[in-house]
Amino acid sequence: MKFANIITLTTDFGLQDPYVGQMKGAILKRNITARIVDLTHAVPNHDILNAAVVIRTSYRYFPEGTIHLVVVDPGVGSQRSILAATGENHLFIAPDNGLLTLLALDNKIESVHRVENSSLFPSEVSSTFHGRDIMAPVAAALVGGLPLEKVGPETTFTHCVQLDIPKPVIGKEEITGQVMHIDHFGNIRTTITTNHLGRFQPSHFAGIEIGNHTISALSSTYGEQTAGELVALLDSSGYLEIAVNRGSAAQFTGCRPGDPVVVLQNNA
Amino acid sequence: MKFANIITLTTDFGLQDPYVGQMKGAILKRNITARIVDLTHAVPNHDILNAAVVIRTSYRYFPEGTIHLVVVDPGVGSQRSILAATGENHLFIAPDNGLLTLLALDNKIESVHRVENSSLFPSEVSSTFHGRDIMAPVAAALVGGLPLEKVGPETTFTHCVQLDIPKPVIGKEEITGQVMHIDHFGNIRTTITTNHLGRFQPSHFAGIEIGNHTISALSSTYGEQTAGELVALLDSSGYLEIAVNRGSAAQFTGCRPGDPVVVLQNNA
Amino acid sequence: MKFANIITLTTDFGLQDPYVGQMKGAILKRNITARIVDLTHAVPNHDILNAAVVIRTSYRYFPEGTIHLVVVDPGVGSQRSILAATGENHLFIAPDNGLLTLLALDNKIESVHRVENSSLFPSEVSSTFHGRDIMAPVAAALVGGLPLEKVGPETTFTHCVQLDIPKPVIGKEEITGQVMHIDHFGNIRTTITTNHLGRFQPSHFAGIEIGNHTISALSSTYGEQTAGELVALLDSSGYLEIAVNRGSAAQFTGCRPGDPVVVLQNNA
Repeated sequence: MKFANIITLTTDFGLQDPYVGQMKGAILKRNITARIVDLTHAVPNHDILNAAVVIRTSYRYFPEGTIHLVVVDPGVGSQRSILAATGENHLFIAPDNGLLTLLALDNKIESVHRVENSSLFPSEVSSTFHGRDIMAPVAAALVGGLPLEKVGPETTFTHCVQLDIPKPVIGKEEITGQVMHIDHFGNIRTTITTNHLGRFQPSHFAGIEIGNHTISALSSTYGEQTAGELVALLDSSGYLEIAVNRGSAAQFTGCRPGDPVVVLQNNA
Repeated sequence: MKFANIITLTTDFGLQDPYVGQMKGAILKRNITARIVDLTHAVPNHDILNAAVVIRTSYRYFPEGTIHLVVVDPGVGSQRSILAATGENHLFIAPDNGLLTLLALDNKIESVHRVENSSLFPSEVSSTFHGRDIMAPVAAALVGGLPLEKVGPETTFTHCVQLDIPKPVIGKEEITGQVMHIDHFGNIRTTITTNHLGRFQPSHFAGIEIGNHTISALSSTYGEQTAGELVALLDSSGYLEIAVNRGSAAQFTGCRPGDPVVVLQNNA
Repeated sequence: MKFANIITLTTDFGLQDPYVGQMKGAILKRNITARIVDLTHAVPNHDILNAAVVIRTSYRYFPEGTIHLVVVDPGVGSQRSILAATGENHLFIAPDNGLLTLLALDNKIESVHRVENSSLFPSEVSSTFHGRDIMAPVAAALVGGLPLEKVGPETTFTHCVQLDIPKPVIGKEEITGQVMHIDHFGNIRTTITTNHLGRFQPSHFAGIEIGNHTISALSSTYGEQTAGELVALLDSSGYLEIAVNRGSAAQFTGCRPGDPVVVLQNNA
């Protein structure tokens, strides 16, 4: 695999502290030409599923050969290992705690190595910040040309930790999913994707129920509803999204992550 | 126009979600050498005037040839077009919704093209994120050498959407403006600029009224008043600013955007 | 000193406003190849000690030759000068207000110049934003090859402003320090470092008191305690840290900056 000299960062570090900056320093110390792009550092603390969604929905917007560091790591300092997994000509480096589960469910993971070659680490490795002390220098070494097999032994994803993902339940007359994520605009991303909806015949589509509200049609753009009205559409990552044109669907519906979302089909 | 290989980003996306990172990926996918600088992603949701102030006050600190992407886009997916406008040897790419109004009022806009050449877009363009799917690749193509006229047909700014900007009212004895923006330090930026004040004779300056407070003099630095006192000065972008030395003028005065600010002149 | 073409930024500007972006523009305008890395822009307003901790704990993760701009500058526009100080093959540019005190206490400062060469500044220097109008172009000129002595006259750190740092009190049976900083995860950084603890015999360690809680042992990793329990360890920068495994120690103890932290020794 040929690397593109780009490293993305996804963490739950926030931006108040200099932790993200220190990681970038650790990358540049090993490879002063590496280019670093923030995906987000606002993953809720220790929220592995949230980070798994971020990386699944974002990696493909980057050039092939990009390395994605995903550091949501409540088990730092314990015996959990660190993975370097390839897929779709991207490389993902993350603690072995389920962060790559969604990529695996999508059959995107091609190979997995455990990062164990301590000759790649600095002389002092803290027990509380492996993102800076292990993952950053390993990513920097890889974009600098280190062959992937040098990071440690190959394994298979079946030996890695997997998250238990809440899958939509597909009935004869409805698909029941959940609110998975609410974004900055109050847009609601659900667990239901184009794949699930594909099993339904569009002509039999009979509406979407969320909270106390029913949405009667799928739209293509926010603007198909008047301002302040609920709209359902497929977002730019293939998820069913509930939004309010120029407003907040989260506020409008009062929904929170985990709440049910039902797509109805009329088989009559 | 020769481009400097620098693209700035101004959005209302916030940093919680990976949207800004995805835009950067989309730029790098098209032009892996492009340099990207965040201006701010904390424009209040859909606040076009706020973003217009950001870009007007900031572009000139960048090298000539910089491309500025401004993505505050409540009409995304509708028929609104996307503009590529030149001025002062900078290029501005923004939805046609008024974002460039302040630059036009300053007579800084020299040419305007509508971005319509879909051969520059990726094969899949979402209806909800044109910042990533249209504006980012077009900016990347331009810094990579695409001639500007290839993005689409030229138009004139008079055919573009303009914001209705609250202009200060200039009377014989006073200028009445508004609080336009409150920054992170609680500093108050008003709609009154050096241009407005220039019509007054400095020797007749008789104070500034804001909330229940009167400020008797214009200062050059925060430190001309003792800590905790109100100070009025011309900020680094030419706007009349009300501040509190080592404190928050917003808190001190209780003012919010839209509240009146009056500059008095004594003609006696 | 040879510069590495990397400039880090540490400020109290926040990210709502375009101030950080404008500083980056001012750097790139002078030196279009400079690489800029954010350490943090969330230093609490005017909190010089906080920024001093950030820079002390972070600089060493960057390549030698890095320039660190630290702009927490409540005295901007007054007569306070601006320093360019070298140490450990890094360069620090900061207002002369105590920001470099901790580096000096660690004996890391080797030389100090006052930045006075106005030929390096742009033609217009605002009185409210020297980070953008003085420090940024000077840093850019230095990474571009300007010899350090050209920025202004050399001085000694004894002539510079120093912060009064709350030092731990070392008694016969205890070290009494303070909560210095609470991070994004609720981890508590104290004023007590490995240096202070080194004077105690590990075999006589008799616990740590914080709030109404006692911690009986020093751990190596968060995970040595069960989830939800207090843990004390030395953080990756050498400070005594109080944390809660997968939780917030700040919430658990109710402690705030300035509260006492006591390390006990049993001399019996």
